[in-house]
Amino acid sequence: MDYAKESLRLHGEWKGKIEVVATVPVATKDDLSLAYTPGVAQPCLEIQKDVNKSYELTRRHNLCAVITDGSAVLGLGDIGPEAGMPVMEGKCVLFKAFGGVDAFPLCVKTKDVDEFVNAVYLISGSFGGINLEDIAAPRCFEIEQKLKEKCDIPIFHDDQHGTAIITLAGLTNALKVVGKKKEDVKVVTSGAGAAAISIVKLLLSAGFKNVTMCDRKGAIYEGREGLNWIKEEMAQVTNLEKKAGTLADMLVGADVFIGVSAPGTVTTEMVKTMNKDAIVFACANPTPEIFPDDAKAGGARVISTGRSDYPNQINNVLAFPGVFRGTFDVRASDINEEMKLAAAEALANLITDEELNEEYIIPKAFDHRVGSAVAKAVAQAAIRSGVAQLP
Amino acid sequence: MDYAKESLRLHGEWKGKIEVVATVPVATKDDLSLAYTPGVAQPCLEIQKDVNKSYELTRRHNLCAVITDGSAVLGLGDIGPEAGMPVMEGKCVLFKAFGGVDAFPLCVKTKDVDEFVNAVYLISGSFGGINLEDIAAPRCFEIEQKLKEKCDIPIFHDDQHGTAIITLAGLTNALKVVGKKKEDVKVVTSGAGAAAISIVKLLLSAGFKNVTMCDRKGAIYEGREGLNWIKEEMAQVTNLEKKAGTLADMLVGADVFIGVSAPGTVTTEMVKTMNKDAIVFACANPTPEIFPDDAKAGGARVISTGRSDYPNQINNVLAFPGVFRGTFDVRASDINEEMKLAAAEALANLITDEELNEEYIIPKAFDHRVGSAVAKAVAQAAIRSGVAQLP
Repeated sequence: MDYAKESLRLHGEWKGKIEVVATVPVATKDDLSLAYTPGVAQPCLEIQKDVNKSYELTRRHNLCAVITDGSAVLGLGDIGPEAGMPVMEGKCVLFKAFGGVDAFPLCVKTKDVDEFVNAVYLISGSFGGINLEDIAAPRCFEIEQKLKEKCDIPIFHDDQHGTAIITLAGLTNALKVVGKKKEDVKVVTSGAGAAAISIVKLLLSAGFKNVTMCDRKGAIYEGREGLNWIKEEMAQVTNLEKKAGTLADMLVGADVFIGVSAPGTVTTEMVKTMNKDAIVFACANPTPEIFPDDAKAGGARVISTGRSDYPNQINNVLAFPGVFRGTFDVRASDINEEMKLAAAEALANLITDEELNEEYIIPKAFDHRVGSAVAKAVAQAAIRSGVAQLP
Repeated sequence: MDYAKESLRLHGEWKGKIEVVATVPVATKDDLSLAYTPGVAQPCLEIQKDVNKSYELTRRHNLCAVITDGSAVLGLGDIGPEAGMPVMEGKCVLFKAFGGVDAFPLCVKTKDVDEFVNAVYLISGSFGGINLEDIAAPRCFEIEQKLKEKCDIPIFHDDQHGTAIITLAGLTNALKVVGKKKEDVKVVTSGAGAAAISIVKLLLSAGFKNVTMCDRKGAIYEGREGLNWIKEEMAQVTNLEKKAGTLADMLVGADVFIGVSAPGTVTTEMVKTMNKDAIVFACANPTPEIFPDDAKAGGARVISTGRSDYPNQINNVLAFPGVFRGTFDVRASDINEEMKLAAAEALANLITDEELNEEYIIPKAFDHRVGSAVAKAVAQAAIRSGVAQLP
């Protein structure tokens, strides 16, 4: 199927993929007096007395804003706020279908960090949580950080943390397949955008020790000229030997490659220089850093991509619906590192040792156990880490 | 029924009166590839090329934001943004039920005009129109004006214009009942908030000549000390004889009283001083300026209130759903004076001369002809006045 053409045709027919519906009747005068004036004054007054009641008396408890500035939409780059909306609506559809979360799409017309943060903060009382989406790096890190400081509801940037959760889950199982330990393996990443940085941070949180990030100019190391603030920060905790060199140089002797960068940046020859039983996650979309067959020809044993037509798809839909479901179920005030680690673990554990093999390290997108398993683990981790506001 | 108590109980059971639902399937891999990546890239690119396509390829064409700062919620005053949300959700329910409009509630956490305006402007690309709600005067006028200048989508403050439309409709029919002409009658209003000012402006647009506004201090006239900017503006076009005095003084010899102020501000004695066949709209809610029986005792012939338990209820639900339906149907860039006048005329005309009587000057809230009649008139007026962007 020509997805581009057919999708455009369908979008023209659908004229929007979400709808706002009423869940209460307004068919009679009494209905109106209860859902609206004069009765509605009472719930208003209750919330005035205690703002926490907004989680009991309005839809807030289940409502997530999906917010973009349109600056890094899919692989399309900065296409503008309104042009990002078909993706945001799609995301909202997935939130509902896979997590039972009411999600509402918003695009913000500014590239200024503080203006964006302030606008989102000002409307944050309308929602139970905020999912940031398709915002360019490094702006996205600053936006997320500032919103977390300013808002009292959980903030999650799915391009970062969703991808990181699933990558960690997949890598956990890939290591089981090849019989290596996270503490021992050498991991090399390509890409230094939102996803790459968040993946590396989560791997370090999870106990990986030896990680080197590469951007277009090669290895990132402390002291390299011209690093932006976030890369400088990452240089403090990765590539501890401060090696300089190309991605090819770094891959020599590596156990794991994780690509969230650009098509074709890795060759069969490069994979050949990696350690035995190499793990290759080539997640550039739709064209990966290296196609699975080429990676296999180089000796890679476990291969993962972002595509649904190859095994082991890294698909964000495995994480964000369950993450928000779990977060909302216990009204967590944050989505913290513990919750992300728990989500990854829950995802990995859905595959039993018997089922586990080179071509099945990550649950499928339509595995119906995923949403609730992730939600349960996330909710428990929220309680454990003290951010849950409901028991 | 104790509406307050029962409404609170129901709100706790409902846990929100709206829901965001998906209108497209995501049950298979192909579904996902069409509603989301990779297919969704194509509609995004189309909107990037022409932002107008956002009205064809996303829900924007039917989507209205219902936005408050919580500063003038019902008669409750400034109860705060989150506490206003039960009303906003209720409004969204009515938008859908009576106009087929997808409406989404937002509260904005600021009392600063420019901050509010900027936040709303920044998210305006997500919507087809904005309905402002329960914002205190005179801030609401400035907010509306600035948003109209800044945004390229229609902005409507229902507390002002919705109320004005229905009042004009009712008054048009009331004058028919008593056989007086709008050019000749003396109108006195009580209240100088959002509704009162908008009513007076629309009456003047409609051709009423002799209108005097009263606030708590009595008649508003040019040169009165301590008027705020909006009252000063109104003093230029009302009370042209610059009479000073109390509401009681002004009512002497008046043909029409319109109250959108406070309970009990008008007495039977005061109505007695009005002209023969007086028209009394006592719309303070839930307790009117004067109860219908007391007005009748003073000689009033046509009486209207904001209550559903008396005849001739001024109920905003008669206007806003149809106004936005019509606006969206032709993608109007503004909701202008012509469109409001057309809405009022359509509402008034729903009652035939045969049906018309003292106790039936305004259609009932559940009259199913209302939404489409208003929508049609509004759409036609948008086309006539050159603000429609669709034929």
